[in-house]
Order: sequence, then C-alpha cells, then structure tokens
Amino acid sequence: MDYAPEDDSPKARWERRTEIPLAVASLVFLAAYAVRVLADELPDALLDLCLSLTLAAWALFAVDYAVRWRLSGQRLRFVRTHLLDTVVLVLPLLRPLRVVKVYETVQRRHGRPRLALHARVMAYAGLSTLLLGFTGALGVYQQEHGAPDATILTFGDAVWWTCSTLATVGYGDVVPVTPVGRLIAIGMMGIGMALLGAVTGTFASWLLQVFSAEDDERPPAG
Amino acid sequence: MDYAPEDDSPKARWERRTEIPLAVASLVFLAAYAVRVLADELPDALLDLCLSLTLAAWALFAVDYAVRWRLSGQRLRFVRTHLLDTVVLVLPLLRPLRVVKVYETVQRRHGRPRLALHARVMAYAGLSTLLLGFTGALGVYQQEHGAPDATILTFGDAVWWTCSTLATVGYGDVVPVTPVGRLIAIGMMGIGMALLGAVTGTFASWLLQVFSAEDDERPPAG
Amino acid sequence: MDYAPEDDSPKARWERRTEIPLAVASLVFLAAYAVRVLADELPDALLDLCLSLTLAAWALFAVDYAVRWRLSGQRLRFVRTHLLDTVVLVLPLLRPLRVVKVYETVQRRHGRPRLALHARVMAYAGLSTLLLGFTGALGVYQQEHGAPDATILTFGDAVWWTCSTLATVGYGDVVPVTPVGRLIAIGMMGIGMALLGAVTGTFASWLLQVFSAEDDERPPAG
Amino acid sequence: MDYAPEDDSPKARWERRTEIPLAVASLVFLAAYAVRVLADELPDALLDLCLSLTLAAWALFAVDYAVRWRLSGQRLRFVRTHLLDTVVLVLPLLRPLRVVKVYETVQRRHGRPRLALHARVMAYAGLSTLLLGFTGALGVYQQEHGAPDATILTFGDAVWWTCSTLATVGYGDVVPVTPVGRLIAIGMMGIGMALLGAVTGTFASWLLQVFSAEDDERPPAG
Repeated sequence: MDYAPEDDSPKARWERRTEIPLAVASLVFLAAYAVRVLADELPDALLDLCLSLTLAAWALFAVDYAVRWRLSGQRLRFVRTHLLDTVVLVLPLLRPLRVVKVYETVQRRHGRPRLALHARVMAYAGLSTLLLGFTGALGVYQQEHGAPDATILTFGDAVWWTCSTLATVGYGDVVPVTPVGRLIAIGMMGIGMALLGAVTGTFASWLLQVFSAEDDERPPAG
Repeated sequence: MDYAPEDDSPKARWERRTEIPLAVASLVFLAAYAVRVLADELPDALLDLCLSLTLAAWALFAVDYAVRWRLSGQRLRFVRTHLLDTVVLVLPLLRPLRVVKVYETVQRRHGRPRLALHARVMAYAGLSTLLLGFTGALGVYQQEHGAPDATILTFGDAVWWTCSTLATVGYGDVVPVTPVGRLIAIGMMGIGMALLGAVTGTFASWLLQVFSAEDDERPPAG
Repeated sequence: MDYAPEDDSPKARWERRTEIPLAVASLVFLAAYAVRVLADELPDALLDLCLSLTLAAWALFAVDYAVRWRLSGQRLRFVRTHLLDTVVLVLPLLRPLRVVKVYETVQRRHGRPRLALHARVMAYAGLSTLLLGFTGALGVYQQEHGAPDATILTFGDAVWWTCSTLATVGYGDVVPVTPVGRLIAIGMMGIGMALLGAVTGTFASWLLQVFSAEDDERPPAG
Repeated sequence: MDYAPEDDSPKARWERRTEIPLAVASLVFLAAYAVRVLADELPDALLDLCLSLTLAAWALFAVDYAVRWRLSGQRLRFVRTHLLDTVVLVLPLLRPLRVVKVYETVQRRHGRPRLALHARVMAYAGLSTLLLGFTGALGVYQQEHGAPDATILTFGDAVWWTCSTLATVGYGDVVPVTPVGRLIAIGMMGIGMALLGAVTGTFASWLLQVFSAEDDERPPAG
C-alpha cells in the first residue's frame, strides 16, 4: 500500500488487496468493543456476538501482519522498520491510525506531494492520543461506574476525566477510585504525556516554520 | 497592508484603506459579544442590538477576506499562505491579533526593523491565548453561572478557572459541571496547551539566545 | 564588575566599588520585606522601620542603575543590553540573582573558565523561580491568611501551594480565595511556567550533551 | 566494566570483578529499605537487620567508588566524568540504574552496537523517574499513613499520588498533609519534572527521527 500501482511485487499486491477489508475490520473492532462496554443492558447473546467480532477482527490483523512479514523477506528487522504496524497489532484500537496512510496513498496516486513531516507526526500522535483517550475512557468507565464511592458515574464523566488527565490539568472533581481504574489511569498519563508532548512540541516548531516562511515570501520593505 | 506605501497594486491599496475600519469592527465585535454575555440584565432591545453588531462585524470580515482572495489571484494556495487570516475568519474573536501586524506596518514605515522571529511567535501565540482565554471565560460563565451545583458563579470565578486551566494547573476548586461548559473547557485545554507550549518553548530558546549574545558582547577577561 | 581588574574605565571602577554595598542592600531589602509580612505581631515602629529599609534599598538600586546608564554612554540600547539589570530594578526581589554574576567574577579573577551556557541559563532561571516563588508565597500569605473561608492559613501552606502551582501540579487542597490573592497566583502561573519551562528544557538538552560527551570519551570496544 | 575483556588495566579488572557483587548489593539495599518501610509490624530484630543491610550495602558502594577513583588516576575530574556514579553514591536507591550499563556491556561483548543516544537518555531518565517515584512513594507513605487527617492511608494510595504528581496532573484526591511529607513531595515535583521533561522531549525528537527514517527507506512513487 506504500508503493505506486506500478509496483507488482507480491507484498505490494497483498497490501493493495487487503486495504479495504482491513479498514472495515478496524471499524468493526472499535464499534464492537464500544458497544460491549457502553450498552451493558443488552441481552447476553448480543454481547457475546460483540466479543466474537472483536476477537475475529484481531485475528485478521494478526494474519495480515504474519503474511506481510513473510512476503517482506526480512527477519527481526521487519519489526523495527514497521514499528507502527507492530504497535497496532498489540493495541488494535490504534488500528484506525492507518487512515493517515490510506490518505497518503490516495494523494500519491493523484501525483500530489505527501504530507510534510511535521503534519504527519502531529496527525499520527494526535490520532493516537484520541484513540487512546477513547479506549481509556471506555475502560475506566467499565471499572468505575458501579464501584462504591465512585465519582465517574456516566460515560460523559469518563470522557471529561480523560480530557482533564491527558491535558495534565487534573481538576480532581471526578477521579477513579478502584485499583484497576487507577492502573488504567496511570497508563494513560504515561502514554498521553509522551504523545501530547510530541504533538505540542511539533506544533511549536511548525509554528516557527510558518512564520519564517511568511518572512521569505513577503517582498522587502520599499 | 503588508507592503510598503510605494506598492500600488489593487490588493495593497485595498489593505491600506480597510485597515482602520476593520480594526474598529474588531473592537465592536469583541465588545458587543462581551456585553451580551456579561450584562444579561440589560433590556432585550439592547441585547438584540449587540447581537446585530456582532453579526455585522463578522459579515465585514467575510467580505474583506473574499475581496483579498479575489485580488490575490491565488486559488486554494491563498488559504495556506494567509493561514492567520483564515483562522481569524472562523474565530472572529481572534481578530484583534491583527494588532501585531498593524504595529509591524507602523514600525516599517518609520524604517525600523520588524520584530525578531521569536518575538513575533511569542506575540501572536500569547495574544491568541489571551483572546481565546477571554472568549472561553465568557462562554463558560454563560453556560455555568445559572446551573444547579455550579461552582463558577461570577465572571471572576470564570477568569480564575480559565487561568488555572490554561496553565494546566487545574486546582479543581471551581470546575464546569454542565455538558456544554465542559465541551468548551476541552476545546480550551487543547488549543491552550498547543499555544502556551509554543509561547514557553519559544521563550526558552529566546532566553538561550539572549545569554549567548551577552557572551559575544562582553570583552574577554584581561 | 563584568570586566577584569585591569579595566580602568569609570564604569568598571563604579561597578567594582558598588558591588559589596549593593549585595548588602539586596539582603536588607529581602529580609525587611519578609519580616514585614511574616511577623505582623511586631510593634508598629519596627514594621515602619522595615518599610523604610525596603524603600531605601530600592532607592539605592535606582541610583546605581542611573549612574551605570550614564557612564555607559548608551541610550535606550542600554535597557536592551542590560535586560537583567532592568528587570531587577522593577522587581527588586530578584536582586539576589546577581549572586551568579558575583560568582562568575570571582571565578574569572582566578583564571577559571566561566559557567557553560546551559549551566548559566539554568542557574538564572532556577534562581529567579526560587525568588519569585518566595515573594509570591509572601504576597499570597499576606492576602489570604486572614480572609474568611481561607485555606491558606500558615506560611507553610503558602509555600506548599506555591510549589504545587509552579510545578503545574495544582492539587487544589489549598487555594487562594481572595481576588488579590488570585491575581498574584495568575502572575506566578504565567512567569513560573515560562521560567520553569526554560529550566527543564535546558536541563533536557544539557542531559543529551552529557551523554554525547560520555560517548566520545570512552575508548572504542576491543 | 566499560571496557572490552582485552583491557587489562587494574581499573578494568576491578570493574569486571565487582560487577556481580555490586548488582546483588543494589537489590539488597532496595529490598531492605522497602521491607523496613512497608512491613512495620515485623519484630524489631528484623527491622534492625534491614537497617544494617541498608547501611552495609551503602558502605560497599562507597568503597567501590573510592577504589575506582584511586585507580583512575584522575582528581576532581573523575567526579565530572563519572557523574552518574557520583549521583548513585549520594542517592543509592538509584543504584539499579547501572542495569542499563550492564546491558550495554553484554551487548558489546557480542559485537552488537550500543543503544542509540535517544534510547539511552530515555532509558536512564525513565528508570531514574521510576526508582525516584518508588522511593518517594515509600517515604511519603511512611510519613503520612499514621498522621491525623491523612488521605494517604495505604501504599497503593501513595503510588497513585506519586503517579499523579510526577505526571503533573495533581488530582488532589489524596495529598500529603504533614510537613515532612510535603517536603518529600516538593523534592519529587522538582526532580520528576526535570527527568520526565527530558524523557518526553527526547521521545518527541526520536519520533521525528523515526518518521524521517521511514521517508528515506521507502522508494519514490513510481
């Protein structure tokens, strides 16, 4: 999927053919997981269906990863050069990140330049933060909303808590009180700090670039 | 407005002529919006007047943007190269940002050098944060001060909450409790983090520059 | 005071002669201000003495600044090239910052190299934060400890609140509740964020340097 | 321990021989300290044993440092070039940091390249933060869990408070209330901010590198 249509290697063909099915599988995965957590008053049969869909989508990702590793002819180096794909395999909720790659492929087919480095880092890190935050809010809501003395009672509370945590504001009006909820929170603080730090840092240097470019464009004062 | 007085293109002439009216419109816009939110015990007729003034000012900005786009002879590239103007069109409360440009034009007419890159980034990002914070405080105050269980009761509380949020301190002594108030808060956290991160990052590198320059200036020890 | 002893210009001589008296005046200033705030059960005569001492020290700083400006033969450029001195004139509590300069002068007289750029930025910004925090804690304590519903009751509370604010942690267990206390707090958030951001940013890049230097020093393997 | 096995200087031989005993001593030190703090219902004899073990391990570190200083033939320069070892001597709880060096030595013996600069900075700063956080949580727990009005009642509370402090989130649901507990907290804020800032800053620039490298690897569009 990274190559132009003229590339006819088995790997390139595989990636072109699996693009659409995998994108669908991503959406199914995310939706099934969210339904299972948020709609806990559904009949058990439906909840089991959601779980099966989640696992089936994950299995698809694993198969795709294995086939591409095989076709690449690389050994462990594959893991390093396809870092994003590996992370996605372990945390499938980050799968929708590939949407940036799909966008880039489409842009390239039409002969347009790809996103600039800064824009891509911000897009990936920002999207990761968004997906991570959504997953974290789901997990914390699942752990907390039934606990005694809980302050996170609705999914809206969980989203509000997630935003104030990822931004390191931390009001403390709603906080997790169960051990598992706090564990998820600690994970979110760590990964969120790193990713959001990358977004804001990249934004700052991009801002400097934009201002410099404006300087060059404008004719010198008469 | 970016060009020296000798520049006689239609675009330059348009920008010179609209400079003052647009600056006035900015102030009217901001004042009318603030009055509408803060002075809610005014008679309805006055409040409607404020709303009309707000919309009229916005219409002026849109017309100015369209004319300048037309005169530039550029297509979509105009949006990219005039990023600040585009943002201002969507969020007119940021309009007073142009005050930096006006200051620069005046400086240039007197043959003085423009602000250094660091100073300009800090000025723009800092001013944006200030205006964004003021707008956010207005919006949150409007949503919260009548809600049950609200902790943000006065505009002073809203300003205090805004500062502690933008600095990512987040005491949590006053917090929004309504869904819309929290939505505005989330937007402020996101934009505020990016802008203030840019200000502090630029300040840090500017500080390093000042110290380096001091090194060069001082004669070596005898 | 920035020049080697051989420099015999009037400015250098003035700076050498005023070094000790001004350092003493700094300490007197800081001590008198702190006593006035913290020991409010002292007799009025003593408190008035403290105020007089504070004002006298400030007058000394102003005279010194004026003389040095005169002797430098520069106009407004003096303000820019002696930025630190100017800031110190406006906020005399930052006066003890000069201790870094005194240390550097002593080092130079003994032929030792001056502090590296990173170390100096960290020293200045770190010391400024410390002094600013101390002053802010004094001011907030003065405003808050008598207010109804106050949570900052002792000077220890004020120091604890200051640290949690400057580190942008913001627990919210003790917070200012009076308008003036909150205004001081907002000022501290702003300046503290910028200064501490400079310290941590410089620390990070210094850490990278240390690790790189260690790489170069060690002989290649086997 | 930094040199390949062929290096036969006394220093290299000393380092090879003390490697294992010192690693064991590190673990003993950390374990004995943790047991003493967490298991305060143990009989006094056992607690005294823990204290003795702690002190004995510290003595070992001091002896090792002294011997290596002697063998290096350097004077004060030793302190600067072995900065990490010096910090470890003062704060022996950071001793396990050497695990990174052990890993590097093993890698080198097998002819593999050492960790990249970014990875090493992140590994050291991240591990330091982890160990510092663990120690801080122990210390705060020891001070707080018996105090009146304490909110940190279990070691789990202390860990939760530590994470929310180091990430500068600061919910304020559990906070130290004793003077000594607050002093430890202030120390953790300072060091934690600097170290975590280094980790996230390095992560951001590493992310930019990874994305740039991906650009170079991929063939240009057909």
